[in-house]
Amino acid sequence: MKKYNVAIMGATGAVGTEFLSILAERNFPINSLRLLASSRSAGKKLSFANTQITVEELTHESFNNIDIVLASAGGSISAEFAPSAVKAGAVVVDNTSYFRMKEGVPLVIPEINPQDIKTHKGIIANPNCSTIIMLLPLYPLHKAFGVTHVHACTYQAASGAGAVAMDELKKETAAYLEGKSFSRTIIPHQYAFNLFPHNSKLLENGYCEEENKMIIETKKIFHEPDFCVNASCVRVPILRAHSESLNITFAKEAGIDEIYNVLKQSPGIEIFEDRAKNRWPMPADASGKDPVLVGRIRKDISKERTIDLWVVGDQIRKGAALNAVQIAEQLIQ
Amino acid sequence: MKKYNVAIMGATGAVGTEFLSILAERNFPINSLRLLASSRSAGKKLSFANTQITVEELTHESFNNIDIVLASAGGSISAEFAPSAVKAGAVVVDNTSYFRMKEGVPLVIPEINPQDIKTHKGIIANPNCSTIIMLLPLYPLHKAFGVTHVHACTYQAASGAGAVAMDELKKETAAYLEGKSFSRTIIPHQYAFNLFPHNSKLLENGYCEEENKMIIETKKIFHEPDFCVNASCVRVPILRAHSESLNITFAKEAGIDEIYNVLKQSPGIEIFEDRAKNRWPMPADASGKDPVLVGRIRKDISKERTIDLWVVGDQIRKGAALNAVQIAEQLIQ
Repeated sequence: MKKYNVAIMGATGAVGTEFLSILAERNFPINSLRLLASSRSAGKKLSFANTQITVEELTHESFNNIDIVLASAGGSISAEFAPSAVKAGAVVVDNTSYFRMKEGVPLVIPEINPQDIKTHKGIIANPNCSTIIMLLPLYPLHKAFGVTHVHACTYQAASGAGAVAMDELKKETAAYLEGKSFSRTIIPHQYAFNLFPHNSKLLENGYCEEENKMIIETKKIFHEPDFCVNASCVRVPILRAHSESLNITFAKEAGIDEIYNVLKQSPGIEIFEDRAKNRWPMPADASGKDPVLVGRIRKDISKERTIDLWVVGDQIRKGAALNAVQIAEQLIQ
Repeated sequence: MKKYNVAIMGATGAVGTEFLSILAERNFPINSLRLLASSRSAGKKLSFANTQITVEELTHESFNNIDIVLASAGGSISAEFAPSAVKAGAVVVDNTSYFRMKEGVPLVIPEINPQDIKTHKGIIANPNCSTIIMLLPLYPLHKAFGVTHVHACTYQAASGAGAVAMDELKKETAAYLEGKSFSRTIIPHQYAFNLFPHNSKLLENGYCEEENKMIIETKKIFHEPDFCVNASCVRVPILRAHSESLNITFAKEAGIDEIYNVLKQSPGIEIFEDRAKNRWPMPADASGKDPVLVGRIRKDISKERTIDLWVVGDQIRKGAALNAVQIAEQLIQ
């Protein structure tokens, strides 16, 4: 079996360290692993399998002999360094939003549009975490019953803003409980026992960038420019799993049993509920797990051919690192 | 000015203690104030204005000479004791769900259907907190543009389950941060850095009671049995303010400026936002405040004649105690 020279860009972040776990867990065929980060992190050692690997400073010369780059160091870093990686002959699987909507860059969820991987010209983009979590259950329902509209309200965790935001949430909450003041550096608003509409940049039409990503990325992944999707994104004081309340309208009448049957057979998701116990997916259930958990499927009593459902997925795994590693796995097949 | 003999049923709870503050703040014309609670709390002293009042045990004989009862001691307590209060000549403003949907019991939000107060036969019901918070901005929009459908996703605070739940959330979070185990007694699931679909009883149709309340109470308050409303309710680790993401469809086309104008002139709500700073209402802003905060009004780009908006209201004040005191104020006018 061929083995690959892999580099991780942004190795010390929340997604970066998750790459290390997932590559080891899934026995990705690695010949060599290079960990790249800013000069500030260079020299740190990170564990991979049973070895320690020293983090190197990311430069334009970091990609000699590299086959695959897993990138998660922020959009501006990908913008600057991904072209150098491609020039050096590597394929970049990019977790940032920078290349996602670029013409010619496939945007891939392997359970949905793996065929798009083949069209890459050196860069394959990983969708936004909230998009991935929404589309895993939505896509098989769309294939089966034709989705004419989806409305998503999100409950997003701190991890979307990185490991530093997760740490800040814990520290701010501890300070709150002790009645101490706290200086925030990452999250712009009180986060202890508080929530707020997603703080990504506001666009002219009143949507924030996070919502816009869910809308435009869905159209690209589905190859349906007119697909109707709406999203309202909210950050909640949760550490690492995103929840979404989805309201989905179908072209065809679909029975609840049929919907359960479709979802049960779909990859990447798990029906996770105990109706008798009124027990549905929670972030605490999904954290650290691969599948996106789905439950609370019910007919919307206010609207025809419409259902509500509830999904929860680990933002760092399937929302980011796992999806990127799955893309790399497909790439080398 | 006439002064009234007032009794509070459930005086030691989160809503009960808020009744005391609100009656004092608003100079409710009180002749005497009787604080009623379970035998466990009898003998406790609570502050009202500049006096200390001793809590008495609630019995069927507690209502002699009482004009107005503000009740918030749970549905089964209201079911048992409200009829005795009515028999003794008092009017009961009941915060529990027990009488809300009963024929002949008005269900009132004073900004919306004050005229219904006059139809009472001794009991006036206070709507569910999530219903009140949703309807304050919805009603004026409905009057102006005709609402044909509303879909609400809620982000509900611990206070909905009482002062004990708020306390438990803080204690469980402190234990979590210290890596200690914690035994829950009120909330059925992990609540520290976690959230879950509302844990009220599940109905046959897959909705939980909290969602059903938002649906059926809206129809009763609006006197429109066919009004189309859908709700998905979620408990989040927040202390005392509920947030709701509303998606509202109108019969008529309505411009964003017209919508702002209508909301600006509507009672009980406050437009609270700074678009340039991407700053919208948060639970931390609404906690302890009277008005329901409204913001992030934008056209839904996926659907005609539809908007999204974001509302946050203090669950204990306008969601419960304040609304009940406002009903009492109308009653004595």
